[in-house]
Amino acid sequence: FHTPSNQPTLMIRATVSIEKETPETQRPNTFLRESEGGDVRARFEKMIRDAQDSVCEAIEAVDEAGKFKEDVWSRPGGGGGISRVLQDGAVWEKAGVNVSVVYGVMPPEAYRAAKAASADHKPGPIPFFAAGISSVLHPKNPFSPTLHFNYRYFETDAPKDVPGAPRQWWFGGGTDLTPAYIFEEDVKHFHSIQKKACDKFDPTFYPRFKKWCDDYFYIKHRGERRGLGGIFFDDLNDYDQDMLLSFATECANSVVPAYIPIIEKRKDMPFTDHHKAWQQLRRGRYVEFNLVYDRGTTFGLKTGGRIESILVSLPLTARWEYDHKPEQGSEEWKLLDACVNPKEWI
Amino acid sequence: FHTPSNQPTLMIRATVSIEKETPETQRPNTFLRESEGGDVRARFEKMIRDAQDSVCEAIEAVDEAGKFKEDVWSRPGGGGGISRVLQDGAVWEKAGVNVSVVYGVMPPEAYRAAKAASADHKPGPIPFFAAGISSVLHPKNPFSPTLHFNYRYFETDAPKDVPGAPRQWWFGGGTDLTPAYIFEEDVKHFHSIQKKACDKFDPTFYPRFKKWCDDYFYIKHRGERRGLGGIFFDDLNDYDQDMLLSFATECANSVVPAYIPIIEKRKDMPFTDHHKAWQQLRRGRYVEFNLVYDRGTTFGLKTGGRIESILVSLPLTARWEYDHKPEQGSEEWKLLDACVNPKEWI
Repeated sequence: FHTPSNQPTLMIRATVSIEKETPETQRPNTFLRESEGGDVRARFEKMIRDAQDSVCEAIEAVDEAGKFKEDVWSRPGGGGGISRVLQDGAVWEKAGVNVSVVYGVMPPEAYRAAKAASADHKPGPIPFFAAGISSVLHPKNPFSPTLHFNYRYFETDAPKDVPGAPRQWWFGGGTDLTPAYIFEEDVKHFHSIQKKACDKFDPTFYPRFKKWCDDYFYIKHRGERRGLGGIFFDDLNDYDQDMLLSFATECANSVVPAYIPIIEKRKDMPFTDHHKAWQQLRRGRYVEFNLVYDRGTTFGLKTGGRIESILVSLPLTARWEYDHKPEQGSEEWKLLDACVNPKEWI
Repeated sequence: FHTPSNQPTLMIRATVSIEKETPETQRPNTFLRESEGGDVRARFEKMIRDAQDSVCEAIEAVDEAGKFKEDVWSRPGGGGGISRVLQDGAVWEKAGVNVSVVYGVMPPEAYRAAKAASADHKPGPIPFFAAGISSVLHPKNPFSPTLHFNYRYFETDAPKDVPGAPRQWWFGGGTDLTPAYIFEEDVKHFHSIQKKACDKFDPTFYPRFKKWCDDYFYIKHRGERRGLGGIFFDDLNDYDQDMLLSFATECANSVVPAYIPIIEKRKDMPFTDHHKAWQQLRRGRYVEFNLVYDRGTTFGLKTGGRIESILVSLPLTARWEYDHKPEQGSEEWKLLDACVNPKEWI
């Protein structure tokens, strides 16, 4: 069982850099390099592209007015991505659903297996492969929660000069909910769908990944979490690879049933300027978490990833008031309290 | 001459941590510890407190509606600060002017002189002293620019077990302008006041500190600067100490004449939603710079400084649109171009 602050992953993230992307006019059938081995890569790419389609379809169906704008891009050495953004719709102010496939090279110090394989023989740089889907959905109505989900698969090749070293692979991801106001039935519904997906595979998954989520989305300088959590896991490889691929697929397929019913219930609720201002303050916290702590964001900014895809997670609008403190016992205070003291929802 | 990315300073910032502050009901005459030597500390504290008073007075006089709210705080081991924030005024949406005095302890590895003094004898932790004024002024009108300034003085004591090691001290700071639209006469006026302050002391100051400013306020992942610059310097100690104190004083006293005339000219200019949305997008860039790159902010967040004082630099409101690109040749494009390709204004 890996803890969230996992040293090797952080090292990789600090030292990898990737090529500049070029726009494409058409979606290719695959972003994989030709004739490459390992069907998990192909199956994972298919899964995230299907998930992108079905989530975008569900969002457009509820929004009615807004449409996703698509950008396709590729990198000369292989890999690429599809960014889809719906902006200023009827229900969502900003909804981004991105898939990407990245080929890169990491320094050998970051590669645990290579180090173990040859203490006296320093291997060269390690090629790696990463594919993922990443999405943030920010609705307009302050009673409608923001949703984030991300599922990713990572593989390293054995270094050329250490052929005996094992290839490594791992899965990561999660789905979490960030409301400005608590409707307990909504939060329970959301968490129960996450639990159901987890329980199909391992009864320990939900409690472990729920806690991991609370620990990960922590805004340390505020002493509070970004939202009301969900599930989060990283560097997961101590299970059968097919089982973990099925688990990631189940999680991605749970996004629509976990989220859309909540939006349908809350999207037209009447609200005041007071509710809107509080939502905007919580959006400010979202920005703080993503720019200061989120691994994917800080990694992307440092390595020269596609900036517009990385920062699509930021809300359309946000607000910072000096020394704002909600009145004790108010609805705003209840939300903040649940961010400071994470609760068991089911 | 030190470059902006100066290793020892960064090391200090990564490893220092400071005590929790407690609120005070009254401003003390000084935040200095009793009977401590070195009158530069006392003179610098007086200078920044006078500057805080005169800047706040000038802001309130122009704003007419808004008033600064003051928070005074201290730390058990010495030091403290005065935070003043004017929020939702007639002219400024958020104006923060803070002074602080900090006593802390840094690890000996960060202390260059101590290392040189004793190669075979590892000294203990090094006490340090830091005092500064820091301010960000965000106006409402999109034709009125944001101003930032910060002047600070830093001292280390010799380690107790290396009494022969010299004490170190240095000055840092700067004043810079961040408009959403360029009025060339405003930018020229602003830079010429900075140059005049610099030229009284050393003809090399303005060109060096102007470039240092352009280099420092760089949003690397965007390939653009936060604004149109001004002056910036850090770790400045290779001049007479009295001269540098006078220089910092001159710079602080130049804030009002450099900035207020611009605001008086622009505060009532008519504008459209289009202008406001562009200002909000530039505010988003301001947030990106401060949370991802600004040393004072990232240092403060990591060391447990007073969060509300540190983040008062963030605007009341900000905006992120996916893949926004101003039309070539438009006023928005001209501003962006000047942020990408810094210009000589005088």
